[in-house]
Amino acid sequence: MKDFDLSLYLVTDRRLAGSQSLEAIVEEAVKGGVTLVQLREKDCSTEEFYSIACSMKELLSKHNIPLIINDRLDIALACDADGIHIGQSDLPYEVVRKIIGKDKIVGLSVETIEQAKEANDLDVDYIGLSPVFSTNTKTDINTPLGLEGIKEISSFTKHKSVAIGGISKENTKDIIQNGADGISVISAIIGKADPKKESKELIEIIKDARKELR
Amino acid sequence: MKDFDLSLYLVTDRRLAGSQSLEAIVEEAVKGGVTLVQLREKDCSTEEFYSIACSMKELLSKHNIPLIINDRLDIALACDADGIHIGQSDLPYEVVRKIIGKDKIVGLSVETIEQAKEANDLDVDYIGLSPVFSTNTKTDINTPLGLEGIKEISSFTKHKSVAIGGISKENTKDIIQNGADGISVISAIIGKADPKKESKELIEIIKDARKELR
Repeated sequence: MKDFDLSLYLVTDRRLAGSQSLEAIVEEAVKGGVTLVQLREKDCSTEEFYSIACSMKELLSKHNIPLIINDRLDIALACDADGIHIGQSDLPYEVVRKIIGKDKIVGLSVETIEQAKEANDLDVDYIGLSPVFSTNTKTDINTPLGLEGIKEISSFTKHKSVAIGGISKENTKDIIQNGADGISVISAIIGKADPKKESKELIEIIKDARKELR
Repeated sequence: MKDFDLSLYLVTDRRLAGSQSLEAIVEEAVKGGVTLVQLREKDCSTEEFYSIACSMKELLSKHNIPLIINDRLDIALACDADGIHIGQSDLPYEVVRKIIGKDKIVGLSVETIEQAKEANDLDVDYIGLSPVFSTNTKTDINTPLGLEGIKEISSFTKHKSVAIGGISKENTKDIIQNGADGISVISAIIGKADPKKESKELIEIIKDARKELR
């Protein structure tokens, strides 16, 4: 059975890592409470992406945290990642599922209410609600879904969901309370002076937000 | 059994296609005598690459010409291509072979005499000798191997070989007579006014060059 927790989903971006190594940042973030890691590298060779993916897989295995690869099914297969995250401009979901098999996690970004409805016909493992707010770290974006979008999609989706885009400590509570199962962050952790502390604070906000809902 | 002919190996580059569709150019080239086609697209989304690969696969199947995908194992798997061509900055050969299986064609670029020697320990289906001459259509290149490089590698390689880089009607004869099993071209066909005619002329030069060797 696929067992994963979307609560605090870290997406990588080496460009924000500054002088620290990406591996060191990710390890600190995991110690702070990150529950899932997506390796997302757009500007590197296949060889380099594979090399980073292998070292990330080794690191995360030790902490029992699943590694998800963004877009590149070849890299996911090559490093035996736990899953893949695809967007609307990547390989079609059915093709990905057929090749990667049913035991791996496949996440799909939905950018509109319509796409979220369509995803109900697919056996994806989670949907990414993208973007919730406007952001500078992703460029291929539609109009933000906003908190209203999260609320609406949460009312009908059969899938677990994670909110993506423009998420910080300030809006995390609202996102969880509008129905997302977790938040996905890049710059709220990577590039911060203390990734472990930031992760801890975020996971606390998430837990508190859920408690209030009970 | 993998049955393929390296004689006239067309590598695509949409940027050179001009106002013609890449599919139309490739079909003309195949009618002219191209024996193998490699889809090589560096600047497009995965979705777009996949879409082109599927239509190319359909087109080439009709003509019984194998389709090879450059670098991207995910695209090769997704469109059920006949094989993949990897360079020295792509996934490692063993990883690719393990995932794609033994029935598909795997070609490997070698850029030095040393790499050609190392390739003798691998069960690749062919090696690409790259680059033979300097070229403007590939940027990730070492010092050209030259005709001397082809001759030397041909003296010890156990693999079939295709020469890549800077190849035209003017130097095709020398390349074949120095030991390559075929030539790989981009701009000698794509972007020309009559791709069929260019392909015909190239294949004639190749045949004549082989006859002279007998």
